[in-house]
Amino acid sequence: MDRERFDRQIDFILEADKEKNILRQTHLSGHGRRENDAEHAWHMAMMIYLLREYANEEIDVGKAMMMALIHDIVEIDAGDTYAYDEEAQKTQKEREEKAADRIFGLLPADQQRELRGLFEEFESFASPEARFARTMDNFQPILLNNANGGSDWREHGVRKSQILERHSYNGRGSETIRDYILGLIDENVGKGNIIDA
Amino acid sequence: MDRERFDRQIDFILEADKEKNILRQTHLSGHGRRENDAEHAWHMAMMIYLLREYANEEIDVGKAMMMALIHDIVEIDAGDTYAYDEEAQKTQKEREEKAADRIFGLLPADQQRELRGLFEEFESFASPEARFARTMDNFQPILLNNANGGSDWREHGVRKSQILERHSYNGRGSETIRDYILGLIDENVGKGNIIDA
Repeated sequence: MDRERFDRQIDFILEADKEKNILRQTHLSGHGRRENDAEHAWHMAMMIYLLREYANEEIDVGKAMMMALIHDIVEIDAGDTYAYDEEAQKTQKEREEKAADRIFGLLPADQQRELRGLFEEFESFASPEARFARTMDNFQPILLNNANGGSDWREHGVRKSQILERHSYNGRGSETIRDYILGLIDENVGKGNIIDA
Repeated sequence: MDRERFDRQIDFILEADKEKNILRQTHLSGHGRRENDAEHAWHMAMMIYLLREYANEEIDVGKAMMMALIHDIVEIDAGDTYAYDEEAQKTQKEREEKAADRIFGLLPADQQRELRGLFEEFESFASPEARFARTMDNFQPILLNNANGGSDWREHGVRKSQILERHSYNGRGSETIRDYILGLIDENVGKGNIIDA
């Protein structure tokens, strides 16, 4: 065993533990508390495995799952940027790049390149795995929010046009799931949970 | 799209959300709050990916990760059974089998068989993936506990012999990591965090 290598791997694994304290805007089903990044990533990875039959392209499921597990790790330093917070989004890219340098930099060089690669791929939709994982990243909070009667949308006064803009790329990962999501959005517009504008 | 099939998959995914409310005895690093099952599984799956080079046998990483993600799902009904609670362990098997019937039963028949299969395989060490995932299941809380100066062991008055018994199978998944864990245990015995008996 190369002890220096192993120690770097363990340092990264312990650093990742902090993701369990990064809260998202989404609430757990049953009108629960706010969800954290680790829980969201766990749920997303499970969804990738269970719903992969609906991906437009064939995917390497292990790769796509790992992409999901680490896609928010930069938020340990950069914080969670809410999907509909336009001010925070202006500085998001810069904050997250700096965080990626530090956090992936904990790993041995080969795994640093590998995980940074998965992270960049996810960000830029650069593979079938990235496209499907991005669709799951959107679908997971929609499922929880819908199960809670749309309370997260109501709290933030979200407009249908904002959601459609953010979700314009869901069809790149899965046309089937994109269509299902559009149905859920329309239902929630109908119920007054999403503003029809 | 077979809508009945899709609805069953979504039912299972929403049911799984409840794992985020099942608390373990382990505390997050930095002397944080108690960890929940979803967070533990997320961390384990990441460790499987990052540390797979230390597995005794070659593993299918996607399969091992999914096994990790769902291995505690029965605790939604059966609750978390602490590793050193001998009374609760007497009824653990029965409680968990009943939960597995109900929860995996939400899925379409093929995925029900597949996930129940992964769950049983994990429980019985029946594959290289199961053996390595079981080692990670033990290693993850040890890492957190050690990072917290052994406070979980102290709180429960855990004896070295109890840990060694529970961890006797770590070498089946990874001899390298088994040896590393034994070193951590001895360090914590030396510091008085684990009772030397």
